[in-house]
Amino acid sequence: MAEQHSDLEKAINTLVTKFHAAAANNGPTLQTKEFKDLLASQLPNLVKTGGSEQGMGEVMRQMGVSDGEGITFKHFWGLIQSLATTQHGLLSSEKVSKCSCVLL
Amino acid sequence: MAEQHSDLEKAINTLVTKFHAAAANNGPTLQTKEFKDLLASQLPNLVKTGGSEQGMGEVMRQMGVSDGEGITFKHFWGLIQSLATTQHGLLSSEKVSKCSCVLL
Repeated sequence: MAEQHSDLEKAINTLVTKFHAAAANNGPTLQTKEFKDLLASQLPNLVKTGGSEQGMGEVMRQMGVSDGEGITFKHFWGLIQSLATTQHGLLSSEKVSKCSCVLL
Repeated sequence: MAEQHSDLEKAINTLVTKFHAAAANNGPTLQTKEFKDLLASQLPNLVKTGGSEQGMGEVMRQMGVSDGEGITFKHFWGLIQSLATTQHGLLSSEKVSKCSCVLL
């Protein structure tokens, strides 16, 4: 496509396609194992489960995933929202001197 | 920082910092004019207001922004969520043959 895309549009695209690509069968939900791999490869710095089953269970509980249930995009989005809100809070509290607007 | 960041982490960072950078005074909310500029520069393909005041008013109404109110990160996030959910829906309905997982 000849259209130019902004950083923000690419960012939205990344969020959607990374979730989608993690489903082995391109299905609407992720299996726990698939979701675990996604977290490990894509959110190693922002989501720390310590690699334990317990840490993983805690993350999924916070996302509102019931036992044995597949992870939907809506669940995933809840996690992203929580991470983004935290990051935004960090930025907003860093008002000392000039804000360089860089988090990572 | 020496940490490596994944595409997904960078995407979250982009969403947060673009909103933050749009506020001239680094304040917690955007003025209508600042938000309008953000949409025009960062979401030209995904949010079409037709450049009209009416189109802009409609977008802000959908985001739950009251007249004269500043745009918070939460308002902005509602818009991003709606765009991402739409994109995800498009991908999910494109299950014909192999999915190339590219939207833009």
